[in-house]
Amino acid sequence: MLLSRQADEPLYQQVINRIASGIDSGALSPGDRLPSLRRLSDQLGVSIPTVRQAYIELERLGRVRARPQSGFYVQARNHMPLRRENCGDAAPVEVSRLTLIDQVYEAIHKPDVLPLGIANPSMALPPAKALHRTMKRVMARAERRSLSYAPTEGVLNLRRQIAFRFMDLGVSVDPEEIVITNGAQEALALALQYVCKPGDVVAVESPTYHGMFELIESMGMLVVEIETCPEDGVCLDSLEKALDTHPVKAFMVASSLNNPLGSAMNESHRKAMVELLVDRRVALIEDDVYGDLLYDGTRPVPARFLAQGGQIMTAGSFSKTSAPGYRIGWLMAGDARHDIRRLKRSVSCSSGLLQQLTLAEFLATGDYDRHLKRLRTALKNNAERMTDSVLRHFPAGTRVSQPLGGSVLWIEMPDGADSRRVFHDALGDKISVAPGLMFAPTDRYRHFIRLSYGHPWSQLLEDGIAQLGRIVGRNRGRPH
Amino acid sequence: MLLSRQADEPLYQQVINRIASGIDSGALSPGDRLPSLRRLSDQLGVSIPTVRQAYIELERLGRVRARPQSGFYVQARNHMPLRRENCGDAAPVEVSRLTLIDQVYEAIHKPDVLPLGIANPSMALPPAKALHRTMKRVMARAERRSLSYAPTEGVLNLRRQIAFRFMDLGVSVDPEEIVITNGAQEALALALQYVCKPGDVVAVESPTYHGMFELIESMGMLVVEIETCPEDGVCLDSLEKALDTHPVKAFMVASSLNNPLGSAMNESHRKAMVELLVDRRVALIEDDVYGDLLYDGTRPVPARFLAQGGQIMTAGSFSKTSAPGYRIGWLMAGDARHDIRRLKRSVSCSSGLLQQLTLAEFLATGDYDRHLKRLRTALKNNAERMTDSVLRHFPAGTRVSQPLGGSVLWIEMPDGADSRRVFHDALGDKISVAPGLMFAPTDRYRHFIRLSYGHPWSQLLEDGIAQLGRIVGRNRGRPH
Repeated sequence: MLLSRQADEPLYQQVINRIASGIDSGALSPGDRLPSLRRLSDQLGVSIPTVRQAYIELERLGRVRARPQSGFYVQARNHMPLRRENCGDAAPVEVSRLTLIDQVYEAIHKPDVLPLGIANPSMALPPAKALHRTMKRVMARAERRSLSYAPTEGVLNLRRQIAFRFMDLGVSVDPEEIVITNGAQEALALALQYVCKPGDVVAVESPTYHGMFELIESMGMLVVEIETCPEDGVCLDSLEKALDTHPVKAFMVASSLNNPLGSAMNESHRKAMVELLVDRRVALIEDDVYGDLLYDGTRPVPARFLAQGGQIMTAGSFSKTSAPGYRIGWLMAGDARHDIRRLKRSVSCSSGLLQQLTLAEFLATGDYDRHLKRLRTALKNNAERMTDSVLRHFPAGTRVSQPLGGSVLWIEMPDGADSRRVFHDALGDKISVAPGLMFAPTDRYRHFIRLSYGHPWSQLLEDGIAQLGRIVGRNRGRPH
Repeated sequence: MLLSRQADEPLYQQVINRIASGIDSGALSPGDRLPSLRRLSDQLGVSIPTVRQAYIELERLGRVRARPQSGFYVQARNHMPLRRENCGDAAPVEVSRLTLIDQVYEAIHKPDVLPLGIANPSMALPPAKALHRTMKRVMARAERRSLSYAPTEGVLNLRRQIAFRFMDLGVSVDPEEIVITNGAQEALALALQYVCKPGDVVAVESPTYHGMFELIESMGMLVVEIETCPEDGVCLDSLEKALDTHPVKAFMVASSLNNPLGSAMNESHRKAMVELLVDRRVALIEDDVYGDLLYDGTRPVPARFLAQGGQIMTAGSFSKTSAPGYRIGWLMAGDARHDIRRLKRSVSCSSGLLQQLTLAEFLATGDYDRHLKRLRTALKNNAERMTDSVLRHFPAGTRVSQPLGGSVLWIEMPDGADSRRVFHDALGDKISVAPGLMFAPTDRYRHFIRLSYGHPWSQLLEDGIAQLGRIVGRNRGRPH
């Protein structure tokens, strides 16, 4: 078992070879933990620094991955990346996804169902202690005042904290242009209601967050899909063609991270997109809910700072990072701030005061940033675990996204497995998934599903994914 | 000073005469407190029971009024009631009240302004201790789960508690038809969005709650005013004529208490109104936010139980009774429950979880009902104090409503004083009032103002009303 100091190769290279052949032979599976440095050092009769050198090189080669405070794990075999989809010439269509989305939501809230269908990243590490402590402090201090109405536009200290976070990006946001909303969903609703009217055509990325379709459908608008690929993001040719061909009033797009793709656009690409929209006088509504959840800690500047003029609004939220049940989001409304305040007042008066006071303090103390760091690490680890698990349990030919942030995997199932069937079969086994059909107005993602890893990892999840793999296998090649 | 036992009249009658002549001569003003039983008994040399008998008789005569735990107070002179307004033949009009309402709201949230412009009854006696205690219990018990998303339609236990309250009225409400919303304003928004589309004609009571106009204006609908008088409520002739003449899609009306009139319709009148609407296939959207704040503790059954069929929805809230900052209301959606759930999900996902759990427990323990009793008493006392104060300080000819519940006085100023001027003058003196123009799409209530008594009574309020009286006096007979 001991390595030989007399061999041609240096010791650390022999360690590498030993581990690599273990992986190739299947003795070590993706997700398995490598022996500790000390243990392997004992087993092979080499020094700990030599083993460490080997592990670091294996990580550089993409064969293993270090997890902080945990050790080294076998990386999933180089999995097949998602393919570029081709939108062709998309025409504006009515949306009718509400019934399907109803079914998915109904499943999510059943207590005995494994909730892989909802994107709820903060639940991987909910900051309950810090938030509860802060809220109690707020209640003690504000007493009866904490029960009263917040201002329509929201608590000034919270708007200041939100604006302050953008200063780190070198841009200056006026707290007065921010309107606090009931989550980012209300922010998107206000922006869309302000910019468009029933019958108007709205362009959206494809695939994209289903909440946009719910809004567009319930407001009686039409939608045109814009091709979006995992590598580059929104296809500008596809966007330009749509603007040339259809009377598009607004474009809705994820600014920081595409849900479900888990991909992000680089700044020059985003800038070209924003300039095109400004040039064509098409409003841009950005969804920035994942801005604080990119694993590398970067975040994009709001689109408004990438071009001169234009009608650009950016929505954000604390639902993905901290407390979805607080229902606190925001809209950076720019010049439309006064009209957006009015709209906000007319549709829901104002947002919850106690939660706003609590979040303002949570941000001001630095607790929020400390929490974000831990949450991003937890989510990144979960992403790896779930990817490993899916690649182990799903049929060959499965393609999986490589998310840069957030809490979801976007999975292309092989041989045209139908996501609606998979959804129903899985629900029969008490597992909820989000069928690909939710993420476009057309059926183009029928053979995709989205899985959420926004939960503390557990054997239950591992077992659920194994079961899902069997369900997907059964549904391969069945007629739709 | 002592009364004579030898006089023709019995002693208690002599006490009555003494007090009455004091009031008539002006030595005792409305709102003044009568001497305590013991003190007057000493002064006049009669027994305490005799003084008590006199005071009770004076109360029966309407000259004084007992306030619990406080004593007897001189009643306001019989004040002039509001007059019946005549709508004539109202035509559908566009609304444009948002700018005015902006100004009023801006004034309300300035910390150094006396907030008589906002109807915020619970602030007369905020149940902060009980709610904070309950919320802490909920946080301790639900821990991290209390941060997550509530179901779209709301927490079942809260919907059950709401439905349960209607059982006392002998009607059966299914918790499954209730959708929890971000206050009643979102409930009204969902109902209106469901029933109407931009360009449709909506009938409303006149005067009515300005939030309805904000909604109608922001949704691009037209409004037709229906005459509503302090005695009978909605004028059925006026309603019928409007339905005959215009393509009215929906009627919005306060079911329990008109804001600003403070009046309530009796059941047979309401029933006739509902039957007329059902017969004409016009949707009815009821606003029941004051259902728990009628001073006599009664509340009306939802309109749906007064007729067969029809499209009827009822909105309610905990904002007027408990915690406006919680933003928790509800819509009883009847057969439209599934569509309303979808709309709710599309515009704001769901409502705050922690507040829903807290309110569910607040209701279940009986704390809510105990709080309501105290709050109604406090508001009723405030109504008397503010009425006294207005009648003392405002110019002769002022007419004042006699509210049956809630927290506002509706005041007709004499000689055509302009409420917009009064609003601006008062704001200059750091007092906010709600100008009558806010309560109709037309200028018919230009010479009205609405004052809120939803605050703990204080000398500051008394002084503010004296100052308002001077402002109204200065604005009499000035051209608009």
